[in-house]
Amino acid sequence: MTNILFAARSEKWEDYEGPLRSALDAAGLDYRLSTELPAAEVDYIVYAPNSDVQDFTPFTRLKAVLNLWAGVEGITGNETLTVPLTRMVDEDGLTQGMVEWVTGHTLRHHLGMDAHIVNPDREWDATPPPLSADRPVTILGMGALGQACAKALTALGFPVTGWSRTQKELPGVICHAGDDGLRKALTDAQIVILLLPDTPATLNLIDAETLALPARGAFLINPGRGPLIDDGALIDALDAGQIAHATLDVFRVEPLPEDHPFWSHPRVTVTPHIASTTRPGTAARVIAENIRRGEAGEPLLHLVDRDAGY
Amino acid sequence: MTNILFAARSEKWEDYEGPLRSALDAAGLDYRLSTELPAAEVDYIVYAPNSDVQDFTPFTRLKAVLNLWAGVEGITGNETLTVPLTRMVDEDGLTQGMVEWVTGHTLRHHLGMDAHIVNPDREWDATPPPLSADRPVTILGMGALGQACAKALTALGFPVTGWSRTQKELPGVICHAGDDGLRKALTDAQIVILLLPDTPATLNLIDAETLALPARGAFLINPGRGPLIDDGALIDALDAGQIAHATLDVFRVEPLPEDHPFWSHPRVTVTPHIASTTRPGTAARVIAENIRRGEAGEPLLHLVDRDAGY
Repeated sequence: MTNILFAARSEKWEDYEGPLRSALDAAGLDYRLSTELPAAEVDYIVYAPNSDVQDFTPFTRLKAVLNLWAGVEGITGNETLTVPLTRMVDEDGLTQGMVEWVTGHTLRHHLGMDAHIVNPDREWDATPPPLSADRPVTILGMGALGQACAKALTALGFPVTGWSRTQKELPGVICHAGDDGLRKALTDAQIVILLLPDTPATLNLIDAETLALPARGAFLINPGRGPLIDDGALIDALDAGQIAHATLDVFRVEPLPEDHPFWSHPRVTVTPHIASTTRPGTAARVIAENIRRGEAGEPLLHLVDRDAGY
Repeated sequence: MTNILFAARSEKWEDYEGPLRSALDAAGLDYRLSTELPAAEVDYIVYAPNSDVQDFTPFTRLKAVLNLWAGVEGITGNETLTVPLTRMVDEDGLTQGMVEWVTGHTLRHHLGMDAHIVNPDREWDATPPPLSADRPVTILGMGALGQACAKALTALGFPVTGWSRTQKELPGVICHAGDDGLRKALTDAQIVILLLPDTPATLNLIDAETLALPARGAFLINPGRGPLIDDGALIDALDAGQIAHATLDVFRVEPLPEDHPFWSHPRVTVTPHIASTTRPGTAARVIAENIRRGEAGEPLLHLVDRDAGY
């Protein structure tokens, strides 16, 4: 019997209990999982740094602490922790979640769903949307996330153009790089998706000048980073009709302040930083795999180097 | 120079002129395309049966009439038409359009988009949606459209179960058939998609009994046929919370009458029969290919057998 203590904020137990039990069952473990166990009986702690558990001294047979967060800066300095510590790496969940969110909102704008979701006048306009083949999409940022989204959208028939700092090659995707490439990538795009990192070079990349390049009435989708966009220039482009609608998942300040004009603008959709985040389902599988490894005497995944701090 | 007369309702010219010119250019044709040409100079007529042109006698050098509609019952009896007649077959456009609509609305419900699109209280709830792997989808009807949708949803990571009258085999899809299979396919589904034909056997298939089978709070998506659903039973299931939301593209009477309860129900989305329809873009390519064939002396596609009537 392996005893596993869940030590995160109590409201997280509801999200994680089911996925953890499923993943532990699937890993073939004989276990007890609870938010309350006698300290001296605990083998593993599934942990969040904001937990009530801050003194690890009573956990005399503890084998490892498995952090639910990617960030471990809240625990690496804890001198009572003397057993291995792992951090959460949920690339599958993060990338997959991003692909689902980006594909969903791209199809939403492509199909003009909003006019059907909110239709108080009961308007019946049977004009079909164009097919995806006639809807050019441009992705700025062709890292792991951008490439995964490009692949999914290409599979659905969208012509996809990608732009990145360094030239990339991806089957079926027109790839541009550099300043001149940015202009080429944005010109005549009907849907623009931002998946760039937040760096000095990308700060306010989406400004009055670049917002003028896509086709009139284009859609802007930002699941990347808030500072990529000059917020005032975007509002101006929306008001002028150059951008038909912006769907934004990330902001300079989060949660987005209640008085920010994005909330009240009729052609802005705010989503609460959900495009790419650790999910209980996939995170639970990472935790279960590490407990399986610990019990089998195999090396743990994603071990933290506590001197380096990550 | 090939002279092509566009003879459909005048409002269609706006939709079709661009796509037709693009397709005719792409086919390498030297042509004149207009809504007004001297009858004696016309080689091909791009036609809709509700056109003002009903007497073909003045078109003395006419080579073929290319119907924009799949239905030709409005023209097969016209005795002044003595040249070949073709009908519109736009399988690529129809199937692709269906895949886009079904995938889009599946992701919409999966991601809980509506709560972000309409969010008057500016609520910021950063709980992420589950991943597609944890969202079982069931498709009733595994013909060409059902299979194409199953393939697209499987590629996005959804576990897909299909049901059809006769047993089908599709990689990565759990396929059921028959009455007992219907129960298995629906049980615990979180998103149910209807792509069945309208037959005596499918009439009111979605009734109080079958609506009770999916997981509580499931989503129903109907781009198939209106009579598949017992409308009253669906309203009851929505009111009871058994079905969280229904997105419906087809109805017993279309356009959906203004006083139908679907219009006013807060958890029903009506789309105006746009999921699968002929698009100017793909239809224009079918027309252009037939004119290219005609000019090259090759047999025309989709020739109508005027005795059979289709």
